[in-house]
Amino acid sequence: MTRHLLLPVVLAVVHTASAQGLGGLWPVPQPVFTSGETSLLISKDIEVTLNGASLVSSTNHGSSSVSSSSLVSSGVSRALDNIFSSNFVPWMLVPRYKLSSYEPALNGTIVSIDSLAITLTSNNSTFKPTAADADESYNLTVTEAGEAQLSSFSSTGVLRGLETFSQLFYEHSSGRAWYLVNAPIDIQDAPTYPWRGVMLDTARNFFPVADIKRTIDGLSYSKMNKLHVHVTDSQSWPLEVPSLPELSAKGAYTQSQVYSPADIQSIQEYGVARGVDVYFEIDMPGHIGVVGEAYPDLVVAYNMEPYTTYCAEPPCGALRLNNSNVEDFLGELFDDVLPRVAPYTSYWHTGGDELNAQDYLFDPDVNSNDTAVLQPLLQDFIDTQHTRIRNAGLNPLVWEEIVSTWNVTIGSDVVVQSWLGGTAVQDLAASGHKVIDSNYNYYYLDCGRGQWITWSNDLAASDFPFNDWCGPTKSWELVYSHDPAEGVTDAATKSNILGGELALWSETIDSQNLDSLAWPRASAAGEILWSGRLDDSGQNRSQIDAAPRLNLFRQRLVARGLGASPIQMEWCTLQQNASGCAQPA
Amino acid sequence: MTRHLLLPVVLAVVHTASAQGLGGLWPVPQPVFTSGETSLLISKDIEVTLNGASLVSSTNHGSSSVSSSSLVSSGVSRALDNIFSSNFVPWMLVPRYKLSSYEPALNGTIVSIDSLAITLTSNNSTFKPTAADADESYNLTVTEAGEAQLSSFSSTGVLRGLETFSQLFYEHSSGRAWYLVNAPIDIQDAPTYPWRGVMLDTARNFFPVADIKRTIDGLSYSKMNKLHVHVTDSQSWPLEVPSLPELSAKGAYTQSQVYSPADIQSIQEYGVARGVDVYFEIDMPGHIGVVGEAYPDLVVAYNMEPYTTYCAEPPCGALRLNNSNVEDFLGELFDDVLPRVAPYTSYWHTGGDELNAQDYLFDPDVNSNDTAVLQPLLQDFIDTQHTRIRNAGLNPLVWEEIVSTWNVTIGSDVVVQSWLGGTAVQDLAASGHKVIDSNYNYYYLDCGRGQWITWSNDLAASDFPFNDWCGPTKSWELVYSHDPAEGVTDAATKSNILGGELALWSETIDSQNLDSLAWPRASAAGEILWSGRLDDSGQNRSQIDAAPRLNLFRQRLVARGLGASPIQMEWCTLQQNASGCAQPA
Repeated sequence: MTRHLLLPVVLAVVHTASAQGLGGLWPVPQPVFTSGETSLLISKDIEVTLNGASLVSSTNHGSSSVSSSSLVSSGVSRALDNIFSSNFVPWMLVPRYKLSSYEPALNGTIVSIDSLAITLTSNNSTFKPTAADADESYNLTVTEAGEAQLSSFSSTGVLRGLETFSQLFYEHSSGRAWYLVNAPIDIQDAPTYPWRGVMLDTARNFFPVADIKRTIDGLSYSKMNKLHVHVTDSQSWPLEVPSLPELSAKGAYTQSQVYSPADIQSIQEYGVARGVDVYFEIDMPGHIGVVGEAYPDLVVAYNMEPYTTYCAEPPCGALRLNNSNVEDFLGELFDDVLPRVAPYTSYWHTGGDELNAQDYLFDPDVNSNDTAVLQPLLQDFIDTQHTRIRNAGLNPLVWEEIVSTWNVTIGSDVVVQSWLGGTAVQDLAASGHKVIDSNYNYYYLDCGRGQWITWSNDLAASDFPFNDWCGPTKSWELVYSHDPAEGVTDAATKSNILGGELALWSETIDSQNLDSLAWPRASAAGEILWSGRLDDSGQNRSQIDAAPRLNLFRQRLVARGLGASPIQMEWCTLQQNASGCAQPA
Repeated sequence: MTRHLLLPVVLAVVHTASAQGLGGLWPVPQPVFTSGETSLLISKDIEVTLNGASLVSSTNHGSSSVSSSSLVSSGVSRALDNIFSSNFVPWMLVPRYKLSSYEPALNGTIVSIDSLAITLTSNNSTFKPTAADADESYNLTVTEAGEAQLSSFSSTGVLRGLETFSQLFYEHSSGRAWYLVNAPIDIQDAPTYPWRGVMLDTARNFFPVADIKRTIDGLSYSKMNKLHVHVTDSQSWPLEVPSLPELSAKGAYTQSQVYSPADIQSIQEYGVARGVDVYFEIDMPGHIGVVGEAYPDLVVAYNMEPYTTYCAEPPCGALRLNNSNVEDFLGELFDDVLPRVAPYTSYWHTGGDELNAQDYLFDPDVNSNDTAVLQPLLQDFIDTQHTRIRNAGLNPLVWEEIVSTWNVTIGSDVVVQSWLGGTAVQDLAASGHKVIDSNYNYYYLDCGRGQWITWSNDLAASDFPFNDWCGPTKSWELVYSHDPAEGVTDAATKSNILGGELALWSETIDSQNLDSLAWPRASAAGEILWSGRLDDSGQNRSQIDAAPRLNLFRQRLVARGLGASPIQMEWCTLQQNASGCAQPA
């Protein structure tokens, strides 16, 4: 291979190409990302080493067992697959019919990258990270001489760096080469927020395992690290629990819509391999009416009507409080489930949103809707369940109402998920809670598409035009405008705000529209959560700077098999930030 | 085969099943649809006859040539494929784990349908229908003895009847049988409006031929009959015109995003075979700036900035008026294109929306933005193009501004497409125009998902929360609430309202989200346009009655390969119109 620099005319244009976005990454690395104007190829026979030892060729997909080196090895294989097999020719990201000015000539004089040296400085495999101890930082350099080096303290950091590395490259229009346009590259990258996730509701509508794994792919490509599976709700119980088989046998929508223990393990392992912590929520004591299909004596107000009196959405139903049978049931449930998920995650979500006091008028052990009566019972309930979570080696999460509505005292290890908007996130953090932000005004990706409730003609007139409760649609720009810690100056408060999760409540989402609703809008939040809301100059990141890179990233998502929606028409992607597509100040 | 009626216990339940929607059709047949409670199987060896002659077996897909009998033959093959190969087990449409109560027992005593006798009473093949002369009516009966008869005046009517026939059947959970639940069936069905379509914009984003054909599938399943392809706009010219090759060579986004003459023919033939008239629009004299890529002297204001002064969306650009080179160009364009499409359609759309007078300040032959100067030039322009359209044997269409903004006099054969809402449709019809309704407040399926224009931080504050111009999202309920002729009592005015078209402008739509945005919302309008806004009792059709059938129909769309969005969660589809899913008066 001739290591010969090619610099003149073409590369002056490549500079423009870089400005057009061909040198763009999503999320943008920070604090350091410098790049040049030199194009390099990458060899299909690239040699990848880990701490000096040859690791993997592009045809070796590595082991699936969980260790630092195996995580790195399989990560390398996937990155090379994404470069060589799931890449794209970026004609849609350069001016019409000008691609030849942007991609390098294959004249034998261009340098190829034929080695990637990975240094993992710790042996800690972070396949079971908690928000506090996960280190996802990495350094990546690519010289004009074609030497690529990636180093990190953790295998997860290496995975993040490999994702960045893979995003540097394009397929050449000849189909015979793959290239980058912006060497030399120097990246020192680390996340702003440790918690960057998506919540998927598999109870209102079911999602096959393949959908969940594809969602994990999208998260990892976006350098996001949490998949929160809201696995049950009052509508269905798709989670197979071997010690309580009736739960899914009677509560799943159908026996073809069940997650077996092997499915759960497979999903979690898939996440671990990609640096995505998959954790689960069994919402309680509300949002769990479906338990009544198998164990009617354990719940109250199941499918009680009118639902608006007893819950937020049909069917209603809550676990009885102060009931030993419920506690026996939950003991058995958690004894079954928690040990199986604990090897792969540090979290378990006990829910706790929208509990309706009216339900407990029907609870023979309670017979009251008085919060003064209910609160101590709920305190005991939460204490008991959280002890079980902790005993399994996991940290509990709750929805914010447990704290803000019910004044339940929770442990300092509990992460509070906030969705109600306003100042809730900051208030919770200021009062000492660890918080993740799912503000429905910004992060509810299901919103703004109309109602799933239908209305009689008499009622329809007053409900016209049939909007859902949380419109407008959260466009990528709206998602991108949000920073969980915006305006927070107190350091302790700020450090309590761990990050955020985009929510995909699934009343009108299933396999058919999951990808187009999730992506790239979740990725828009992914950049804010990784790179921060402020750019190098301390200003809010601009939609105008972001759009070309998000157009590029969306093309990568599509090339890699995710059905992500376009954010602009091709005329805009061809002429990134052309007048009209972008409105400068 | 034992023709033996099976009536007792199971079939009493089947009545409930029918109420649950298993006997539902979309759009609902009218004026006559009666059905019973008897389940029948359908034989895979069903013999289908056309006017007494054996037509096709389920393994013979028929000829692709265009004749009444070949249209019927291939329609039969597709209907049988949809029944036997692209069907579904309707577990999601009956109460949880109650499917066995709804599907027939395969005990050898149940009657099978083993013949379908089709009667075509006219030899007119309506593969080139116009709104005035297409007859899509049909009669369909299925007796309890398993005799199926379908008759129509036209091959298109037979196709509509075959669609209905195919929608009667479900796959049995055994995988070994297919059945209906509601014999005897008597249907006399005919459309309310003759024009029931979708407009797809292939210029803002390109759609591969497969996407267009799949859209035709969705239209035919919805008994809709028009696909209006807005094939060019100022952004791109994907239409290959052999006599003017530079148009697409320079104006397509890329050479992989071009419709060849063979593609166009293939799309139209695909439509003809399915009773869908595919017609095209080359929008002019505005919305055509891209011609300037190949012929800069023919357009003015191409990509002029700020775009807001010169057009509605970048890039601007309009054909020069009063210019012989433009007329020569258009003569050559139409001489090439029109004879190729005319065998398959009766229409050509010359556009005419959003023409901006400011553009003509830059036209050396005009030098004016005075509508008094421009109007007669536009009149001549329209007259000339419409003469060309007519000379090719086609009827012109225009957007409403040609009439309502520019006071251009158009022929009585011209169909006016209205999008501006308010009373426009009714006003145009009252003044004697044939009108189709694309009211943006109801029928713009792209709306309500946020902006594609990006904003600097300075401007973003005033643009928050980044809504597009035409929100909210047009939910299926909103689409379904609209009747183009609502409130019109004058018979002549009413007859001028031909129907409507749902619009899919593609600034933020491409292959990845086309299906989920188009379906089943377009189908919701399809029912109103076919079955009418009023039900048998003269009341507006209710969302509550419609939702179970639309849930069912959406499952069919998915089973047949369209990525249609869910309109409700499975809990609602399982318990159709359960409390909470439906709010009765």
